Amino acid sequence: MSQYPPPSSPGDAHPASAAAGAGAAAGSRLDRWVGTYAQRTSSMTASEIRALFAVANRPEVVSLAGGMPYLPALPLDAIADLTARLVAEKGAKALQYGSGQGEEVLREQIVEVMRPQGITAHPDDVVVTTGSQQALDLVSRIFLDPGDVVLAEAPSYVGALGVFKSYQAQVEHVPLDHDGLQPAALEETLVRLRAAGKRVKFLYCVPNHHNPAGVTLSLERRREVVAIAQRHDLLVLEDDPYALLGFDGDPLPAMRSLDADHVIHLGSFSKTFAPGYRVGWAVAPHAVRDKLVLASESAILCPTSFGQFAIAEYLSTYDWKGQVKVFRELYRERRDAMLAALAAHLPQTTWTHPGGGFYVWVTLPDGLDAKAMLPRAVTGRVAYVPGGAFYADGTGGQSLRLSYCFPTAERITEGVRRLAGVVRDELDVVQLFGSPANSRAGRPGVDNPGPELA
Amino acid sequence: MSQYPPPSSPGDAHPASAAAGAGAAAGSRLDRWVGTYAQRTSSMTASEIRALFAVANRPEVVSLAGGMPYLPALPLDAIADLTARLVAEKGAKALQYGSGQGEEVLREQIVEVMRPQGITAHPDDVVVTTGSQQALDLVSRIFLDPGDVVLAEAPSYVGALGVFKSYQAQVEHVPLDHDGLQPAALEETLVRLRAAGKRVKFLYCVPNHHNPAGVTLSLERRREVVAIAQRHDLLVLEDDPYALLGFDGDPLPAMRSLDADHVIHLGSFSKTFAPGYRVGWAVAPHAVRDKLVLASESAILCPTSFGQFAIAEYLSTYDWKGQVKVFRELYRERRDAMLAALAAHLPQTTWTHPGGGFYVWVTLPDGLDAKAMLPRAVTGRVAYVPGGAFYADGTGGQSLRLSYCFPTAERITEGVRRLAGVVRDELDVVQLFGSPANSRAGRPGVDNPGPELA
Repeated sequence: MSQYPPPSSPGDAHPASAAAGAGAAAGSRLDRWVGTYAQRTSSMTASEIRALFAVANRPEVVSLAGGMPYLPALPLDAIADLTARLVAEKGAKALQYGSGQGEEVLREQIVEVMRPQGITAHPDDVVVTTGSQQALDLVSRIFLDPGDVVLAEAPSYVGALGVFKSYQAQVEHVPLDHDGLQPAALEETLVRLRAAGKRVKFLYCVPNHHNPAGVTLSLERRREVVAIAQRHDLLVLEDDPYALLGFDGDPLPAMRSLDADHVIHLGSFSKTFAPGYRVGWAVAPHAVRDKLVLASESAILCPTSFGQFAIAEYLSTYDWKGQVKVFRELYRERRDAMLAALAAHLPQTTWTHPGGGFYVWVTLPDGLDAKAMLPRAVTGRVAYVPGGAFYADGTGGQSLRLSYCFPTAERITEGVRRLAGVVRDELDVVQLFGSPANSRAGRPGVDNPGPELA
Repeated sequence: MSQYPPPSSPGDAHPASAAAGAGAAAGSRLDRWVGTYAQRTSSMTASEIRALFAVANRPEVVSLAGGMPYLPALPLDAIADLTARLVAEKGAKALQYGSGQGEEVLREQIVEVMRPQGITAHPDDVVVTTGSQQALDLVSRIFLDPGDVVLAEAPSYVGALGVFKSYQAQVEHVPLDHDGLQPAALEETLVRLRAAGKRVKFLYCVPNHHNPAGVTLSLERRREVVAIAQRHDLLVLEDDPYALLGFDGDPLPAMRSLDADHVIHLGSFSKTFAPGYRVGWAVAPHAVRDKLVLASESAILCPTSFGQFAIAEYLSTYDWKGQVKVFRELYRERRDAMLAALAAHLPQTTWTHPGGGFYVWVTLPDGLDAKAMLPRAVTGRVAYVPGGAFYADGTGGQSLRLSYCFPTAERITEGVRRLAGVVRDELDVVQLFGSPANSRAGRPGVDNPGPELA
C-alpha cells in the first residue's frame, strides 16, 4: 500500500537540498497542509543563497563563508583514547538519559572555564544546552511574545536574528563601531521604543570578537551597557562563544561579572573544543534558570549525556588550555594572512581588524552589493556571506563577512586575491553603467543560510 | 564587583533541584523579571512529584517509575572500540558542525531500520532530531497556534502533553482500550470539535507498546485511523520508539506505511540502542520536512554529528539487530516478573498486559488516588508515576504507570510486593474513613516530572 514518492505530494524539485525550497510560493501549491501551519511558521524561510553555498563547498572554491573551527588541529588520538575509556568504564551512565539541567560534573567545570572572564557563578546557575543556539532559542521561548522587541547590534549574528524572527519578535538594531555596541545609541533607542509603548524584552549582544563584525566591546562600554540595563530594567543576553579566542592577552571581564541579575551569559565548547557534541550553556538568574530548564526539558528532555561526559573527560584529563592556545595561534596566523591580503589586493574597501575570533567585516566600495556580487564570486571560486544576512531591516547590502578560521593562510591569500578580482570587475561595471547588475540590495528580512555558517 | 549569590535574586530554597520551585507563587515574588515572561511561559510548570522522585532515586527504593533502558546489557567494549576508531579516523568530520537535516549516512540507515514496519521512505524524507522529543517540539512549533487542538489517547505520553501545553494548545483525549485508540471515538471527537469551530491540527498517537498504557493499536484499527485521517484531512503524528521491542514476532505495519501523505512518523535510537546521544528522527511529507529542518536549524543549528556518526558506525559494524533481541528477551523476562507479581499480590486492581515496550498501566481499587498514595509508597520504598500525569484534563487519578525496563526481575517482584502493601494500607484507610487522606485527585493540568520519566 505504501509507495514512494507519494503521488499527491511530489515535494519540491530539489530533494537533495532539503530546505532550499521551503517557503517558496511554488512549493506551497503542492503542500496538502499549507493552510494548517502555525502563524510563526511563515517567519521561517530558507535563504536564497543556500544553493550557492552548495556550489561553494566544492574543493576548487575557497570558502571564506563558514564559521567552522579548524578541527584537524585537535589531538584526535588522545580524544579517541579518552572517549574509549569513557564508554568502557562509564558507558552505562554516559549513554543514559541525564538531567534536564545538565550533568553536575560538567557544570562545575564550566564554572572554572568562565573564571578568566571574572564570572563567579555556582554550578546551580548553569544550564547545559544543545550548543548555545539552543540557549538562544530557550531564552526567546520564555521571554518573547509576538510583537516584542529585541535590541541587537548592527550587524548581529544571523542565527540569533533567525531565532528572534521565528518567535515573531521585532529586532531593532543599535549601531556598533570599533569598540563595539554604542551605549548612547542603546539608551536612546531603548527610551524611544519604550516611550512608544514597545515591549523591549532584552538586548542581544556578542561582546567578544563579534560575529560578524570582528570587534570587541571595550571594558568602559561594558560598564556603561550594564549601567543602562540597571537604570532601565533591561535584560542583557551576552552571547560569548569566542571569549577565549583573543590574540592579545586575557579576555575582558564579562558583563555577567559586572551584574549577575541583569545578564544571561551564554557560552559554548563549539569554538574552543568541538561543535559536534552540541554542548553549550547559559548562566542565568535563578528564576530564569528554572524556566530555561523546564523549557529545555520540553524541547529535548535532556542534553546529550555522552557529549557532556566526553567533554568533562577531555577537560579533566587533557591540557585543554594548551589546546585553546594552539587554536589561538593558528587563527592569529590566518587573521594576519587575511588582513595582509586585504591590504594588498582590495581596492576602495574598508574592513575591521579583529583581535580574536573568526571574522573580518568588509565594506565594499559605494555602488556595490555583496548579495548581487555573490554568484560572480562563486564563479570566480571564492565565497563569503553577504552582509544583509546580519541585519533584520534589509540593510547591510554593501558589506560582507569573511572567515579566516578554516582555510590555510595560503588559501586565504588566494581567496582574497580572487575576491579582489571580482570586486574590480564589479567596479568596472558600476563605472560603465552606474549600478551593479542584478542588484537585490534592500531586500528585507532575515534569511536562514544554514548551520554551516554558524 | 561580582557577587554570589546575587543579593537581589536569592532564587528558590532548593538550588540543588533546579526546576522544583519554578512556577510556584513564592518563587515569583523574588523574580525581577516576573512581569516580562512570554505568555507561553506560564504553561511551563514543574511537577510537585519531582521532590519525591529525588528520594525515589535512593538505592533502597525500588523505582518502577523511570523509563530508562537497561544499558548494562549493551556491549560496552565493542562500542568503546568503534567509538575510538571513529574519533581517530574521522574525528575532524564527526566532531564538526553538520547538516541541519542530519547526516546522509545515518538517514540511509534509518530507512533500513524502519523497513520491518513496512515503511518505504527515502533518506530525503528523514529529519534527524535531538531524540524524538525534539521532533515533538518541532512538529508542534510549525503547526500549533495558541488555542489549536491536538487529539491524543487517554492516557498519553506525558512528555508530549507537556510540549502541546507549552505551545498553548488544547489537548482533547480519545479513549483507548486493549486494542489501542478507539477509531469511532476519534472520528466522533474530531467531527464534534470541528463543528464547534475548533482548529484540530493533528492526532498524536503511540501505536506500539503504548507509553503509559502498554497496549498496541491493532492493524484493523490502524487502517481505520488512516481512513479517518484521509476522510477528514487530519494529520497523524505517529510516535513510535518501541516498535522493535515487541515480544511476539514482527512489528505491525506503521500507519506511515499505509499513508505517506497524512502521517508524520517519529522514531528513536533511545530505546533500541542508547538515549545518551540524543538521536531520533521524523519522517514527513516533503513540504512539512522542509519546515521541520528550518525549525530545527533555528532551535539547535544541527543535531550532534558525533552522536549520528557513532550510531551509524554501530549500525554498520555491530550486530545491532541481535542486540535488540537481547533487549527484547531481557524486557520480556521482566514483564513476566511484573505480571506474575501483580497477579500474586495486588488486591482489587486491574492492569494491562503489554506485548512489548516498558510499561504496565495499573488501575487502583475505587476510592484510591495514585498521587495521594505516592508519598506513602516512597516511604514504603517503591516508586511509580501517578496516572494523572498522562492526562491533560485532570483525570487519571485512579491509575498509575509501572515500568519494568530497568530493575531486575527480583527487584520488580519485591517492588510490586511493597506496592501491594501500600495499596492494602490505603484500602484499610478508605474502608475506615471513606476516602484516602490528602487526596488531590482531580487537580488539573499536565505536570513536568522531568527527563528521568521519559
